[in-house]
Amino acid sequence: MIAVLKHGTTPQQTEHLIAWLRSMNLDVHVSEGQEVTVLGLIGDTSRVDMELLSSLEIVETVKRVSEPFKQANRKFHPNDTIVQAGNVKIGGGYFAVIAGPCSIETEEQILEVAKAVKESGADILRGGAFKPRTSPYAFQGLKDEGIRLLLEAKKATGLPIITEIMNIRALDLFADVDIIQVGARNMQNFDLLQELGKTKKPILLKRGLANTLQELLMSAEYIMSEGNENVILCERGIRSFETCTRNTLDLSAVPVLHELSHLPVIVDPSHATGKAKLVPPMAAAAAAAGADGIMVEVHNNPACALCDGAQSLTPPQFDELNRRLRKIREAMQ
Amino acid sequence: MIAVLKHGTTPQQTEHLIAWLRSMNLDVHVSEGQEVTVLGLIGDTSRVDMELLSSLEIVETVKRVSEPFKQANRKFHPNDTIVQAGNVKIGGGYFAVIAGPCSIETEEQILEVAKAVKESGADILRGGAFKPRTSPYAFQGLKDEGIRLLLEAKKATGLPIITEIMNIRALDLFADVDIIQVGARNMQNFDLLQELGKTKKPILLKRGLANTLQELLMSAEYIMSEGNENVILCERGIRSFETCTRNTLDLSAVPVLHELSHLPVIVDPSHATGKAKLVPPMAAAAAAAGADGIMVEVHNNPACALCDGAQSLTPPQFDELNRRLRKIREAMQ
Amino acid sequence: MIAVLKHGTTPQQTEHLIAWLRSMNLDVHVSEGQEVTVLGLIGDTSRVDMELLSSLEIVETVKRVSEPFKQANRKFHPNDTIVQAGNVKIGGGYFAVIAGPCSIETEEQILEVAKAVKESGADILRGGAFKPRTSPYAFQGLKDEGIRLLLEAKKATGLPIITEIMNIRALDLFADVDIIQVGARNMQNFDLLQELGKTKKPILLKRGLANTLQELLMSAEYIMSEGNENVILCERGIRSFETCTRNTLDLSAVPVLHELSHLPVIVDPSHATGKAKLVPPMAAAAAAAGADGIMVEVHNNPACALCDGAQSLTPPQFDELNRRLRKIREAMQ
Amino acid sequence: MIAVLKHGTTPQQTEHLIAWLRSMNLDVHVSEGQEVTVLGLIGDTSRVDMELLSSLEIVETVKRVSEPFKQANRKFHPNDTIVQAGNVKIGGGYFAVIAGPCSIETEEQILEVAKAVKESGADILRGGAFKPRTSPYAFQGLKDEGIRLLLEAKKATGLPIITEIMNIRALDLFADVDIIQVGARNMQNFDLLQELGKTKKPILLKRGLANTLQELLMSAEYIMSEGNENVILCERGIRSFETCTRNTLDLSAVPVLHELSHLPVIVDPSHATGKAKLVPPMAAAAAAAGADGIMVEVHNNPACALCDGAQSLTPPQFDELNRRLRKIREAMQ
Repeated sequence: MIAVLKHGTTPQQTEHLIAWLRSMNLDVHVSEGQEVTVLGLIGDTSRVDMELLSSLEIVETVKRVSEPFKQANRKFHPNDTIVQAGNVKIGGGYFAVIAGPCSIETEEQILEVAKAVKESGADILRGGAFKPRTSPYAFQGLKDEGIRLLLEAKKATGLPIITEIMNIRALDLFADVDIIQVGARNMQNFDLLQELGKTKKPILLKRGLANTLQELLMSAEYIMSEGNENVILCERGIRSFETCTRNTLDLSAVPVLHELSHLPVIVDPSHATGKAKLVPPMAAAAAAAGADGIMVEVHNNPACALCDGAQSLTPPQFDELNRRLRKIREAMQ
Repeated sequence: MIAVLKHGTTPQQTEHLIAWLRSMNLDVHVSEGQEVTVLGLIGDTSRVDMELLSSLEIVETVKRVSEPFKQANRKFHPNDTIVQAGNVKIGGGYFAVIAGPCSIETEEQILEVAKAVKESGADILRGGAFKPRTSPYAFQGLKDEGIRLLLEAKKATGLPIITEIMNIRALDLFADVDIIQVGARNMQNFDLLQELGKTKKPILLKRGLANTLQELLMSAEYIMSEGNENVILCERGIRSFETCTRNTLDLSAVPVLHELSHLPVIVDPSHATGKAKLVPPMAAAAAAAGADGIMVEVHNNPACALCDGAQSLTPPQFDELNRRLRKIREAMQ
Repeated sequence: MIAVLKHGTTPQQTEHLIAWLRSMNLDVHVSEGQEVTVLGLIGDTSRVDMELLSSLEIVETVKRVSEPFKQANRKFHPNDTIVQAGNVKIGGGYFAVIAGPCSIETEEQILEVAKAVKESGADILRGGAFKPRTSPYAFQGLKDEGIRLLLEAKKATGLPIITEIMNIRALDLFADVDIIQVGARNMQNFDLLQELGKTKKPILLKRGLANTLQELLMSAEYIMSEGNENVILCERGIRSFETCTRNTLDLSAVPVLHELSHLPVIVDPSHATGKAKLVPPMAAAAAAAGADGIMVEVHNNPACALCDGAQSLTPPQFDELNRRLRKIREAMQ
Repeated sequence: MIAVLKHGTTPQQTEHLIAWLRSMNLDVHVSEGQEVTVLGLIGDTSRVDMELLSSLEIVETVKRVSEPFKQANRKFHPNDTIVQAGNVKIGGGYFAVIAGPCSIETEEQILEVAKAVKESGADILRGGAFKPRTSPYAFQGLKDEGIRLLLEAKKATGLPIITEIMNIRALDLFADVDIIQVGARNMQNFDLLQELGKTKKPILLKRGLANTLQELLMSAEYIMSEGNENVILCERGIRSFETCTRNTLDLSAVPVLHELSHLPVIVDPSHATGKAKLVPPMAAAAAAAGADGIMVEVHNNPACALCDGAQSLTPPQFDELNRRLRKIREAMQ
């Protein structure tokens, strides 16, 4: 870590600061230049509060030379991590298509969608049982019963399953779930992350709506520092001023995360755009940007022709998307 | 709730949609205009998924005529709510100054700061025991021991105390805490909100970095719908592109929230700006905008002259700020 | 246009409003429902100030049923517009690769880059002569001399050329320029847009850093409403809180603009990301999202091995990118 | 300027970079540390392209030690600048209230509003003649005729006047205008700024919707570097995700700009919030934050009782606001 001191800092102030830094078990190397004094901090700087340090009156700027994440850092782990869920691999060249309904509604629904997406080539089945909703009055999911139905669909199709956890007290219900999802709103629910770090389950960690990529990696670090290395990162759109899409899908996140980290990166174009017709082009773009998989919503409601415009793809649309993805993946070989 | 259907919608499509809406126990009134068809939905529309409805192919726009929050809504509760913490009142004309250190560090520290802020006129003492940190390697607070020290400071000064909760499993530790704070990162940790709604404790709910004011009110609703009406709203800055301040303090939130809701609204200029020298002008601005209180960080570190530039005020700076606030409050009578 | 009036609006207020709307030559159809009154406004609503209307005390919401842009609107012009620059076509299935240096520096530089990008398959040559710079003290481009050198490169290679205009008074210099670029900072320089609308030159209009897609289309409308239909839209990143990339490339803009408008849409990944190594994956993603072309920076500075990390691609990197783009384009057939 | 080189940079790379920097007439001081090498650049670094430098593969980070603005910089001009418009002073303790209609509509209107605001204590009259509008089909202002009417109102009341310029070719019309406004959309129309820098007129420069405070100061620098030091900065809201207000008023801009620059800073709460009822609290907050003035919209339309909810204050509301501002200003003495 480098701290550049302001022009005009007195020797006493500099000594004060160095003493304080050394009290945190850091080695401090001083380079005095004509314009500025630069302190090089050596040791375990991950415990230094960068915001506090940079807010000091005499400090011009502070810069980490090493990123604050270790376990998620590609520098210390050059090879791609491959996360395995059931017999499906994600990352390191393995591309996974995760599909299923937004919410699990009935046994027929989840079974029908599960069979349809499997037939079209989905690798993993998704379905929401615990639903984080902005309003306390909105449908919050079938909860325990939803997970039971999802497990039935797993049994019927053989597809590994992924579903979201909102409260660590429900962890027992996830014993046979293959991937546990942490939603965008819980990306910095640090207590939840640490508890999930104590399991060995693959965790799909969604980026928060206003979180930087470095913050996403620090949240992955919360899980990994407890011993669980099976983390999948997921870009699902950030909040911006644009209103044509529900959120702004930040596809640059894919190559940036791949450079910084060895963890697999998948993209959720359904939540990011909020419109079914934008899902296929953005899923294709995600694949071309190098994503390790996509997660899309597929519903099956033949009775309701109205729903074509909603966020979820119909099974035929999903089938068509899968075909397109395969061609783009081949073009990238 | 109003749904405007697109020009060109067929009668069958309209009937389909109306049937679906009626299946949710809503009355549907149809107004067919030359350009558009407008559906008026009567009944408990708080359970209607507005995003799903507006994403339907035939729907031009959907608009709630009544806000989705009920308990927090000023329409149903015209008088200001006054929240009481110990013998201190907040809201309805009562202005509360909350002050104290970012983190509780030692017994001496918290006692000294507590006495200093009391002398300058603070109404409530703040201090962090459980600290949400971006990095798992950063100091996470003294936890249980921090709360014990804070309770000692309460005993020594008589000031009511406020501190943050991060995990509902720690609730027992908060038995003698006067106000429980929910941090910005947990604003949509709905399970935590619901559990806090089952207590009668005053809850200070901070706005998330990328959350709208309506979402803040919906989170207050999560607490209130469980029976706890003692909610204090707190604006603490949102994330924007500007880098001169840590976050962008959105002071318009004060009059907007006062119009929409009867709950007290306080402002935290310390976290919003991240710089001590910006705290006094923004605290003054918050008071002039009509806030029901402010929450500021005050530290006491005479050994470290370096810290003047950091986020926290020194006791003399806080004393001076309090004098200024009183004059502005008087000017507003 | 639809205006929904608030519950509790008095008949007199409604009449007042209707009288005012009729004074603007609009037909007003009234539908009185149980909960609300809805006004349907028929006629040339493009002149109605939506913000003013929606800010009125009695108005709940206002919604355009027809978009405010006409000439750029796909509804009134279902077929893709194909813009022609020299013998190169853009849009309607024609994909254009625009490449060249950020700034024109010397004759050798522009000629060498021009030949290199032509050989790799570029369709159009870019190069900055007038450079908008945040600082008045930064290099502002070679100006007139830059355009002269660009025209020489055009003669030498036969490639059509594109360069940015900053001031309408320089228009005469652009007589032999094939496409005139309007930069992000000038997207709402309405006087400049109107003057460019009086020419017949193809105009590449870049999206402003904080402008919505609808505002981009309205700026295209400024050009088109003066008679110039040769507008190419360009997504080049928007401003967000993320700092890993210079801006946030909003690739959803591609399918959204294609749905709303018949104009070609190209993507500039160089300015959006600010880093050469992110350009190839984002260019590939743009092609997969359906863009009608890309614009990338290519420099040629064999003397300076340091520059590999900068925003511009080297000619070999550009060559490799072109090969990848062709394969992705084929996969999308 | 400080450039920190990455760990692992070879001596040849370092020499290459130093040679390049010296070719720009900079002195380069090298400090080699254990972890990093730090280059201190001395000389006129305002011409160094920081983005290019920091994008180099071997460069870890670049930091200006001196801000890139000179003329606007408080360091080189410690005393507050006082801008004089007619006999009205702004800055350095002088607080100016600027008021008037959004658009000049008729002679009666502008005269009536001018007299009303003067009576309530306004210092300067505002009124739009050239109106930047998102849509080419919207009312663009009375233009020349608008300025003629504004000059009549100046004559009738003695108030100095301010109005917006959109095109430098209209400059002659502004001969008797006291302050020329540059709107948010033109904040980076650098050619316009430079031309205005050649006049001696006071210029009110509005912050762009997505521009940082440093960019605002750099745009002020464009005017000042041409010789015109009469620049007034204006905060008018930035674009964020919040939808309750039209823009997000960033009042922290006031103390931040005062620290960085000697120029006066005023606040426009009317455009920022878009709602009349939010104008008084935010104007009061601006005064309490230390602004040197406010600019608010006041209309006078007794025929249209509907307009009370719109962005503009009525004359009685403005009168009441002025009283409140005076009390807050006194409290701050």
